[in-house]
Amino acid sequence: MATIKDVAKRAGVSPSTASRAMHDSPLISEETKDKVRQAMKELDYSPNFAAQNLANQTSNTIGVILPAREEAVGDNPFFIQIIQGLASICNAHDQLVSVASGQTTEELIKNIETMIKRGNITRFVFVYSQANDPVLEFIKQHSKIHYVVIGSPYTDKETTCYVDNDNFKAGYDATKFLLAKGATRIVYAHTDLSEKVQNARYKGYLAALSEVNITESPLCLSTERDDEIKNSKALGQMLSKTGGKVGVVACDDILAIEIQHLCDICEIEQSELALLGFNNSLLAKTAQPALTSVEIFPRFLGSEAAALAINTKGNDKLKLETDHIVVPHKIVERASTKI
Amino acid sequence: MATIKDVAKRAGVSPSTASRAMHDSPLISEETKDKVRQAMKELDYSPNFAAQNLANQTSNTIGVILPAREEAVGDNPFFIQIIQGLASICNAHDQLVSVASGQTTEELIKNIETMIKRGNITRFVFVYSQANDPVLEFIKQHSKIHYVVIGSPYTDKETTCYVDNDNFKAGYDATKFLLAKGATRIVYAHTDLSEKVQNARYKGYLAALSEVNITESPLCLSTERDDEIKNSKALGQMLSKTGGKVGVVACDDILAIEIQHLCDICEIEQSELALLGFNNSLLAKTAQPALTSVEIFPRFLGSEAAALAINTKGNDKLKLETDHIVVPHKIVERASTKI
Repeated sequence: MATIKDVAKRAGVSPSTASRAMHDSPLISEETKDKVRQAMKELDYSPNFAAQNLANQTSNTIGVILPAREEAVGDNPFFIQIIQGLASICNAHDQLVSVASGQTTEELIKNIETMIKRGNITRFVFVYSQANDPVLEFIKQHSKIHYVVIGSPYTDKETTCYVDNDNFKAGYDATKFLLAKGATRIVYAHTDLSEKVQNARYKGYLAALSEVNITESPLCLSTERDDEIKNSKALGQMLSKTGGKVGVVACDDILAIEIQHLCDICEIEQSELALLGFNNSLLAKTAQPALTSVEIFPRFLGSEAAALAINTKGNDKLKLETDHIVVPHKIVERASTKI
Repeated sequence: MATIKDVAKRAGVSPSTASRAMHDSPLISEETKDKVRQAMKELDYSPNFAAQNLANQTSNTIGVILPAREEAVGDNPFFIQIIQGLASICNAHDQLVSVASGQTTEELIKNIETMIKRGNITRFVFVYSQANDPVLEFIKQHSKIHYVVIGSPYTDKETTCYVDNDNFKAGYDATKFLLAKGATRIVYAHTDLSEKVQNARYKGYLAALSEVNITESPLCLSTERDDEIKNSKALGQMLSKTGGKVGVVACDDILAIEIQHLCDICEIEQSELALLGFNNSLLAKTAQPALTSVEIFPRFLGSEAAALAINTKGNDKLKLETDHIVVPHKIVERASTKI
């Protein structure tokens, strides 16, 4: 029976590259994928028998930790795609994916404790990253537990294994995209700049603007319906400034949709704006006009995190081949940026 | 250590009612929940030690099967809430929740096979129900595997264990709601009446209309952007018919949002319509005007399915206390139905 190493050898790539190519990761070029597919075919390789190639495990299960607050999960369509990516890679490597959930932080920690004690689970993936997370603190107390974070860690970044998008680069690319569309003023709209993702996208936006010597104040809005009047006023003021085609980089699709609504309220023609969001969620597709948005490939965030977790070697502390993986992004162009 | 049976006895309810009350199920009255909470307090009961009360298991893991087509999952925000509900109940009963996923049907079946063979998993929950599902056929071949379906089974409904909303009743209630709002004509908008959920909601709508002797043809639309002109025409024709305040029951939130867009295109004032969707998704909250929608409690679909799966007794074929659970729905009123 051929192993993943055999496939990698025949294709002339590393085993991790072979694994990524098999799962159609955007990190791998089409050329390399073709080589790997060819090698798989020649060796009659079936990914489901790859288990023997993995390092020895203390358990054949990867624990996946969802955030405790249920609203946080319910409103985020990415978690399921992340879990799909995780499950797809884990299943293919004979690993089970076990989900830890709880309505409160205490319940979640209790459940994780049970998974560790009764399930002998030693490897976990956090599908989120938040500041001052008691769940992460709990996991850190266990010296034999390995964990991978999806998102940018708030603490111990140097020693933490994580998978993330390059949100700085995403903000930069989004801004450059609107400049290329002919926008002469570009505003960054956000809800909270202390939030890591929004902040990184903002920094990238600033970097792109500084290259063309444009300055602009960020526009702070809220997504609460009750703040509609305050929001409209802020948007109106921003747009009333003289001159030029205006581009808006919104920190995510939800805020971009809110800006579309505010335009309707203020009777601002949407064709006067070039509006762009992030995450390429269902909201972007159903928006009117359909919203240009930055795809962040949540499924691949999940599959890369799974690969990191699976490749953790036994009980040795984080002997990983790579400890930080960046999943690329892609601007999906729709009607909202046609100015 | 108190068991769930002790709590149930002290509260004067059955163990399954006690379990539901502990997880805040909408099936249980507030009064009963209070009784159970009181009993838990008096007995110092901690749900995490309830494992000893469960029937003997062949494995302490429940397998959760996601649909194979990844788009189907990515666009449905409920799956994650269903998984949360499942995980919450299973975790509390010392059961692991293991997710099966695959990019293709073949991959998914292979992964489930591995879970059965290597993980000794004998209990599965399908988080979806679709016609002619090869995955369900595969599971049915295994006499020792028990499964619970979330949604209405397409075949063997009498002998299948399932958890569902009452979509007939939901369609009926939605229609009655619009009648009470003063609508004198009510149209049912759908994309495909051969789809079970859409069809059941339609039947409920028809039942409500027949009570008041109103008849109306269903409005078939598509959610493809390319069909915008065809859709607008159909909507315009429907609304051009003489008379009265018009209510629209859309088969789900996505179609309701599309109808809002079509109104904009046709320059139909949204205040002239009372529009209602189903699922109470993020789309309903961010719509403009915000959309009245029927909440279907996906988290409780998950937790009830978990309870059914956990209560399956060993290898005996489906000795369940109940084999069909209906999770209630609730109309969440927003601006779109103010006529």
